[in-house]
Amino acid sequence: MKVYDIELHSNLMLGTAQYPSLAHLTGAIRASGCAVVTVSLRRETADGTGAGFWDMLRQTGARVLPNTAGCHSVQEAVTTARMAREVFETDWIKLEVIGHADSLQPDVFGLVEAAGILAADGFQVFPYTTDDLVVGEKLLAAGCEVLMPWGAPIGSGQGLRNPDALRTMRAHFAGVPLIVDAGLGRPSDAAAAMELGMDGVLLNSAVANAGDPVAMARAMALAVQAGRAGFLADPMERRDMAVPSTPVLGLAELM
Amino acid sequence: MKVYDIELHSNLMLGTAQYPSLAHLTGAIRASGCAVVTVSLRRETADGTGAGFWDMLRQTGARVLPNTAGCHSVQEAVTTARMAREVFETDWIKLEVIGHADSLQPDVFGLVEAAGILAADGFQVFPYTTDDLVVGEKLLAAGCEVLMPWGAPIGSGQGLRNPDALRTMRAHFAGVPLIVDAGLGRPSDAAAAMELGMDGVLLNSAVANAGDPVAMARAMALAVQAGRAGFLADPMERRDMAVPSTPVLGLAELM
Amino acid sequence: MKVYDIELHSNLMLGTAQYPSLAHLTGAIRASGCAVVTVSLRRETADGTGAGFWDMLRQTGARVLPNTAGCHSVQEAVTTARMAREVFETDWIKLEVIGHADSLQPDVFGLVEAAGILAADGFQVFPYTTDDLVVGEKLLAAGCEVLMPWGAPIGSGQGLRNPDALRTMRAHFAGVPLIVDAGLGRPSDAAAAMELGMDGVLLNSAVANAGDPVAMARAMALAVQAGRAGFLADPMERRDMAVPSTPVLGLAELM
Amino acid sequence: MKVYDIELHSNLMLGTAQYPSLAHLTGAIRASGCAVVTVSLRRETADGTGAGFWDMLRQTGARVLPNTAGCHSVQEAVTTARMAREVFETDWIKLEVIGHADSLQPDVFGLVEAAGILAADGFQVFPYTTDDLVVGEKLLAAGCEVLMPWGAPIGSGQGLRNPDALRTMRAHFAGVPLIVDAGLGRPSDAAAAMELGMDGVLLNSAVANAGDPVAMARAMALAVQAGRAGFLADPMERRDMAVPSTPVLGLAELM
Repeated sequence: MKVYDIELHSNLMLGTAQYPSLAHLTGAIRASGCAVVTVSLRRETADGTGAGFWDMLRQTGARVLPNTAGCHSVQEAVTTARMAREVFETDWIKLEVIGHADSLQPDVFGLVEAAGILAADGFQVFPYTTDDLVVGEKLLAAGCEVLMPWGAPIGSGQGLRNPDALRTMRAHFAGVPLIVDAGLGRPSDAAAAMELGMDGVLLNSAVANAGDPVAMARAMALAVQAGRAGFLADPMERRDMAVPSTPVLGLAELM
Repeated sequence: MKVYDIELHSNLMLGTAQYPSLAHLTGAIRASGCAVVTVSLRRETADGTGAGFWDMLRQTGARVLPNTAGCHSVQEAVTTARMAREVFETDWIKLEVIGHADSLQPDVFGLVEAAGILAADGFQVFPYTTDDLVVGEKLLAAGCEVLMPWGAPIGSGQGLRNPDALRTMRAHFAGVPLIVDAGLGRPSDAAAAMELGMDGVLLNSAVANAGDPVAMARAMALAVQAGRAGFLADPMERRDMAVPSTPVLGLAELM
Repeated sequence: MKVYDIELHSNLMLGTAQYPSLAHLTGAIRASGCAVVTVSLRRETADGTGAGFWDMLRQTGARVLPNTAGCHSVQEAVTTARMAREVFETDWIKLEVIGHADSLQPDVFGLVEAAGILAADGFQVFPYTTDDLVVGEKLLAAGCEVLMPWGAPIGSGQGLRNPDALRTMRAHFAGVPLIVDAGLGRPSDAAAAMELGMDGVLLNSAVANAGDPVAMARAMALAVQAGRAGFLADPMERRDMAVPSTPVLGLAELM
Repeated sequence: MKVYDIELHSNLMLGTAQYPSLAHLTGAIRASGCAVVTVSLRRETADGTGAGFWDMLRQTGARVLPNTAGCHSVQEAVTTARMAREVFETDWIKLEVIGHADSLQPDVFGLVEAAGILAADGFQVFPYTTDDLVVGEKLLAAGCEVLMPWGAPIGSGQGLRNPDALRTMRAHFAGVPLIVDAGLGRPSDAAAAMELGMDGVLLNSAVANAGDPVAMARAMALAVQAGRAGFLADPMERRDMAVPSTPVLGLAELM
């Protein structure tokens, strides 16, 4: 997957919130083989964990994608993005403008506006969006070169709630990197996203909230590879009527 | 996975029918890393391909599980099993007793009867069955030590048509190896089967009928590992209400 | 729907267990307009409720279909059926042979055996069965002239767990009355069953356990009519690509 | 259902496009018992059919809801709405601003803008929108007092593609009339929409493209009533584990 002229060695991105410990997070990043981790400003600025976290990240070699998690307005998101650029020394920003506190769903109006402001300001924006095709077009027009549609609400673990909408996006945005962000819960969800032809997935809760986050990170890495390879291998068509998978054996032929 | 006291190094079994060529089949077996391949008698006895096929199998090191594909009666299945034992020099038999020509669904009555006859005759029976719990109990009572419930009709590629029924089987047959046989089409299907706690999957059409069978075999091998690892890592619960995967960031905290 | 040469004026059958009161049951039967109610022996023989229940039934004019609910063996089911014939003075029997205490799923082996015994004894058997095509054939061969496949486990309210299997049965048993029994929860489930071409549905928990059983009975009656009428009206095909439902309006045409 | 202070006697609205003949349309309107029909300007202005159509509508007594079908820009939609107000002598307007020619999905940006313009101009706007909660809030803020979220793309007949999103809308917009518009195909789809607590459904292709549009209109009317009544009757919970719907009958109790 190539985004903003950077070739990434993995189709998996990992969020860094909610892990039981820094050791679990470190293990998960390594086990996932991810090329990118998302980080919120709090990590850097809050209490003592910040320093260890930062050192750890450096050692894994993962590229940092700062996010604007928790921002509910354009102003808040833009301000946070600018602070993140200074703190993390990168033009990359995962843009979240939340429109509803319970479901954390994107406010697509604020999102497009903020994306335009940030792109004009030199940011390379990764917008967390819905599966709305028209919103996707506006984000591209605003300067985004990648889209991150949701699979389901953040932290729900429901998997792909509307695969047809994602399939429509894939068909429409043939040349645009699409990364499913949010809502995945199991390896089969990640594989299914990749089988739709998506370029990558971003996971957080599914790994951090698993009983064994490190093992789940490894499972997800395998699933992403499996789904991608399956997509490229051109799967059989689903058939309504069953056909023999082993040619029928007449006993007469054996004599 | 351990079946009939044999420890298998892979959770994946592969059927050998319908490949575009012997080279594709060989490549798929190697790429899948499968420990077991199913074979019908015709392979051994039909025209010229038999010899090359047999040599190839030996070189892959995969264990042969002969099947009774295409048998529609107890008598036919038992006779075929006995011939297969002599030809393939193994007590293992994948027992299929087909009850419906179009859907190739098992005839569970004939299946239980044939399983009893063969088990009494020293066979180690792998019964291809439906997702019916009570039928599973009868098969175990008849002497089977493994069950192979379907995911969907043979060759349909529909995936898991009734995951609840498979989940019920898994809960009920806690100590019995369960291998999902038939109906899977994509890597995500194989992963989903393993996430239910199944011990393995048997694939044929999904690999043989893919555009690139060798690449699909590799994808399926990754998917089975991903699903198994995901199951063991204890996935998060699905949640009806979304929760933040990144703790909300108040700007005040940053100052 | 015609079963065993009786023309029924409704496609809905109602079970009589689990209602909050006899008044609720009476109201539900009337509101549903059902032609048939299923009854277990206990109703007639247990404490004081029996007499009022029986009088009430007579007044509704609904035909009684005794059942063998709770029977776990052929012997128990056959004995119960014979007692029911004397008590209820009918050759009709809804045959249940339960194979698993938790899920109450049918034991298809015991079911076919008991059906054969009862049919030979002059009963008109309504077998509660799974969605297994081959089992259905055995039941017809045993003398049944109607099949009652499940939608989901009894009392689960899950709706149609495996619509493809029911669709296969419908296609295969073109001339046989098929009544979906068990597992339905909502009006849309009942409508969906009828849209598959089923001849009727039998409901119990969905009505008895609703907050307002009488209102739910009425809702279900409407749903069954809606689904049947929809089936007969030949629904549009589902389309993968959207098409306009209103012809596009060019402003030029308005001038 | 009460919208814009008008109490409607039916929860069903019907589109008037695509019928095989005016007689079919007339029959469908009558059979559906719908209180409202949507009409595009072309009906009134095009060739000869207009007059008969208009007379027919008057006779059915159905209220006319003009729409802006086929409009792809704010300007086009606003202009069309204003012409429709004069032609049809009503402030009601079903607002469609299409964002994608293939799927006919709403352009939610144009939709909110046009809704604001029209509401300020005294229109009573019925916006055809997606299942996006935040967009719904913007439409209400723009002056709409009803929302018409899609079930699936127009004319697809896919039913409810994302019931969870609709459920979230229902919970969030407790006091707002919600009418599912577009994508329904079968009576069970209409019932399922009403079971979510929706206030109504708007149908067009599902009726017009059925083999027998008049019979399908009647089926849909029943389904809407069934779903609404089922919702109000408080359906049973879906249960993962089956429970007996008939209390188990011990033979001992019968003696």
